[in-house]
Amino acid sequence: MSIVEPIAVVPRIVRPPRVVRIALAGCGVVGGELVRLLAHGADEIRTRHRLRFDLASVLVKHPDRPRPDELDRRALTTDVDAFLATDAEVFVEAIGGIEPALRIARTVLGAGRRLVTANKALLAAHGPELAALARRTGGRLDFESAVGGGIPIVRALRDSLGLTGISAIRGVLNGTTNYILTRLGEGWRYADALADAQARGFAEANPARDLSGEDAADKLRILAWLAFGIAPGGLVVRRRGITPDPERLAADAALLGGIPRLVAEVVDTGDGIAAAVEPVIVPAASELGRTRDEENAIVIESRWNGRVRLAGPGAGGAPTASALLGDVLRSAARAGRPHAAPRAPIEDARQHAWVVSIARDDRAEITLDRTLHRARITASDVVADGDRLVAVTQPIPWRRVDLAARVLESARLAPVISRCEVRV
Amino acid sequence: MSIVEPIAVVPRIVRPPRVVRIALAGCGVVGGELVRLLAHGADEIRTRHRLRFDLASVLVKHPDRPRPDELDRRALTTDVDAFLATDAEVFVEAIGGIEPALRIARTVLGAGRRLVTANKALLAAHGPELAALARRTGGRLDFESAVGGGIPIVRALRDSLGLTGISAIRGVLNGTTNYILTRLGEGWRYADALADAQARGFAEANPARDLSGEDAADKLRILAWLAFGIAPGGLVVRRRGITPDPERLAADAALLGGIPRLVAEVVDTGDGIAAAVEPVIVPAASELGRTRDEENAIVIESRWNGRVRLAGPGAGGAPTASALLGDVLRSAARAGRPHAAPRAPIEDARQHAWVVSIARDDRAEITLDRTLHRARITASDVVADGDRLVAVTQPIPWRRVDLAARVLESARLAPVISRCEVRV
Repeated sequence: MSIVEPIAVVPRIVRPPRVVRIALAGCGVVGGELVRLLAHGADEIRTRHRLRFDLASVLVKHPDRPRPDELDRRALTTDVDAFLATDAEVFVEAIGGIEPALRIARTVLGAGRRLVTANKALLAAHGPELAALARRTGGRLDFESAVGGGIPIVRALRDSLGLTGISAIRGVLNGTTNYILTRLGEGWRYADALADAQARGFAEANPARDLSGEDAADKLRILAWLAFGIAPGGLVVRRRGITPDPERLAADAALLGGIPRLVAEVVDTGDGIAAAVEPVIVPAASELGRTRDEENAIVIESRWNGRVRLAGPGAGGAPTASALLGDVLRSAARAGRPHAAPRAPIEDARQHAWVVSIARDDRAEITLDRTLHRARITASDVVADGDRLVAVTQPIPWRRVDLAARVLESARLAPVISRCEVRV
Repeated sequence: MSIVEPIAVVPRIVRPPRVVRIALAGCGVVGGELVRLLAHGADEIRTRHRLRFDLASVLVKHPDRPRPDELDRRALTTDVDAFLATDAEVFVEAIGGIEPALRIARTVLGAGRRLVTANKALLAAHGPELAALARRTGGRLDFESAVGGGIPIVRALRDSLGLTGISAIRGVLNGTTNYILTRLGEGWRYADALADAQARGFAEANPARDLSGEDAADKLRILAWLAFGIAPGGLVVRRRGITPDPERLAADAALLGGIPRLVAEVVDTGDGIAAAVEPVIVPAASELGRTRDEENAIVIESRWNGRVRLAGPGAGGAPTASALLGDVLRSAARAGRPHAAPRAPIEDARQHAWVVSIARDDRAEITLDRTLHRARITASDVVADGDRLVAVTQPIPWRRVDLAARVLESARLAPVISRCEVRV
C-alpha cells in the first residue's frame, strides 16, 4: 500500500529523515534540473516524506562543462565503472541514447537494484528485456518520465487503463515539434521558431530526432508495449516528421481551416496493432488542436471505459525532472515505506468575487443594499434582470458572503450564491 | 512489476485460464454493469489476461428485483454472513453507504483478503482505517472507481502525482450535476434535465447527495487524503450544491457571460489545506467550462510539475464498472501475476484522407494529375494557393499516397504530405 497515512495529531517528536543515496548518470537539461529540484525541494521532501537525498555520484562525459550551482562537484565522475560501484539505493539514468545507458541499466538491474530512467530510446529498444531482468533479480525499473513529461501516462497504463480493453491511443507526444507548430501557426518563420524552442530548453542542440518523429515513435512504442503487450521494437510505425518543409505544412493546414499537429497513434484494428507518427491537420477546437506550445496530450479510447484524456507539460527539463523525482521518491518510499506527513486542514480564507442573486420584489433592492452594506461588502456590479437582481461582489472571503446570504434568506429573498470566475 | 511481458512468437500451447472467484456485494447500476462487463468481456479477459472470473456470490437486499440476464441467479444471497463466508479471491463492494459496506470491508481486509470498492462515502469516512487494516493484515484495498469514474485519478495520485508537490486539485467530480447544468445551459427546465439524467442512469432515484454536493465532497475528501495525507473526515469542506434553484444559477451564469459548474477544489494555501464544493461561474472556454454532460475533469497543479489535466467519462454504470473491473483484474493479476497476451503488430491499412501539397511550377498541375491518376487516387479537392498546389484525397490507405509521394519526389516537386481530419 502506498497510500499516505494520515496522523490525527502532529507528533511532537519528529523522526530524523532517512538518508537515501542516489547516483545520477547524466547532468544535461533533465539531469541538471533534477539536481536543482533535489536541492530546492529538500525541505519539502524532508518534511513531507521524511527523506533526505544524498547525491553520491554524478556521471558526466565532460567534467568541465558548466553545471548547476546546486551540484557538489566532488560527486562528479567520468568513469562508468566507478559510477556503477557507487553504494546508492537508487540509480537515475538521464543520459539518453543506447550506450552507456544500456550497460548501466543491465548492471544496476542485474544486481537487483533500483533504476529510474527517462530514456525512451533505451526502453523502446530494450524495455521488455530490462523489465524481465528486474523481475528476475527483484530489482525495480521505473520510467514515468520517458513518455508524456509530467503526464502520469506510464503508470496509468501499467496499473489502470491497461486493463480496460484499450482500442486506441492517440496523442501529441513531442513537445518540441508542438512548440514549433504552434509558433508557425502564429506566423513565425521556422528558423526562428526552432531557435526559440532551443533557447527555452525544449529542443536539443541536435533536434533531428524530434523533427523526424523518431522521438515520438520511441514513446509510442513504449505506450504500445504497456497497452497491448507488444514488443516495442516489433511495432510497425509508419513515420513522417514535420520536416522537410514545416512552413508549408502550417500553410496547408491554414488553407484547409485546420491546425497541424504531429500525431502519434497506435490502434487495435481488430486484425492487429497498427501505428503511425505523422503530421495530421486537425480541427482547432479538437483535443489535439487545443494542445499548444510544448504541451503533450494523450487520448485513450477503450472498449469498456470510453474516452479518457490526459494533458500536461511535455518538453523541457522541469516536468521531466519532476516525473523523475516522482519515480525516485516512489522507489525510495517502497524501500523504507515512509509516509508523507499530513497537512493540517483549515477553513478557506481566500478571497473570491461572488455572485449574489435574489428574487426581485419591491423591497429587494433596498434589502440587498442594506445587507451588503452591513456585511461590509462592496458590489462591483448589480444587474436587474427580469424577476431577479444579481450582484457581483469585490473579492471577499466566503465567511462574509455567507453571512449576507443568511440575512437574505431570513428576509425570504431566496438568494442563489455562486463564485464568479468570469470577468464582469 | 506489473508490466505485460511481450512474447516474440505466439506459443502453440495456450495455458488454460486461471479461475478467479469473485464475490460481489450490490447489484444496482454499478454492480449490474460489472456483471454485464464480466460476461461480455469474458473472451477478451481469457485471451489477454488468461483469467476466467467466476461470480461465486452476489449479495443483494431485494432478491426479486430484475437483474441482468447475464447473472446466474443461483449466486444471489441476501445473507451478509453467508456472503462473507464465500471462498472468493476478490471481494467487490458496490453497495454504497456505510452499512453493511463497512462491516464487509473490515471483515474482508481483516482476514488479509482483497477488497475492491467504489464506495466514496465509506472511504471518505473510513479510508485511512481500512488502508491501515489492509497494510497490517497483508490484504489489499483498491478504489479507483470511487473518484472520477473512468479517469485513473486515484492511481495517479497514489503512485505518481502525489509525490510531485501538489499545490491544488480542482475539478468537476459529479457527473449528475454536470449533466443537469449542461442541459440547463441549453435552455432545458430543471425537472426535465433531472428526469433525463435519471433515465440515462447518471442520477440515482434519490439524487439528493449529488445535488447537494455531498457526493463531490466525499470524492474531494478522498483526493485530499491521497494528495495531502489529510484524514478525509477531518477536511473542512465548505459546501453548497446546485440546489435550491439550479435554473436561476444557470440564468445568473448566462447573464454574466459564463457557464455554471459545480466545482470541487482543495488547495494548499501555505497555512494549511482548504477545500470547497460550490457552484462557480467559469469561462466557457476554460478547462471546466468545456467539461460537458456527465464528464468529469480534474486539474492538478503542482510546484514541480506544472498543470496536469485529466478528463473522461464520469457518472454512469459503465465507466464506474470499468474502473472496478480494472481494479479486479489488477488485484487478481497481483495474486497470480499472469501477463496480458501480446497482440500482433501489423501495417496500418486503414483509409484516410490525405493532403498532398507540392511546389507550383508550370508542369506541377499536370504531373500531379498524372501521378494521382496512376496511383488510382481521386482528389476530392485541389486548391492552387500562391506558390503551391494542394490536393486532398478521398480516403485511401497510406501505401497509395506514399507511392504517389515517391513519384512526386522523384519529379522534384517537394511534396508535403499530411493526414486530413478537417472537413474540406
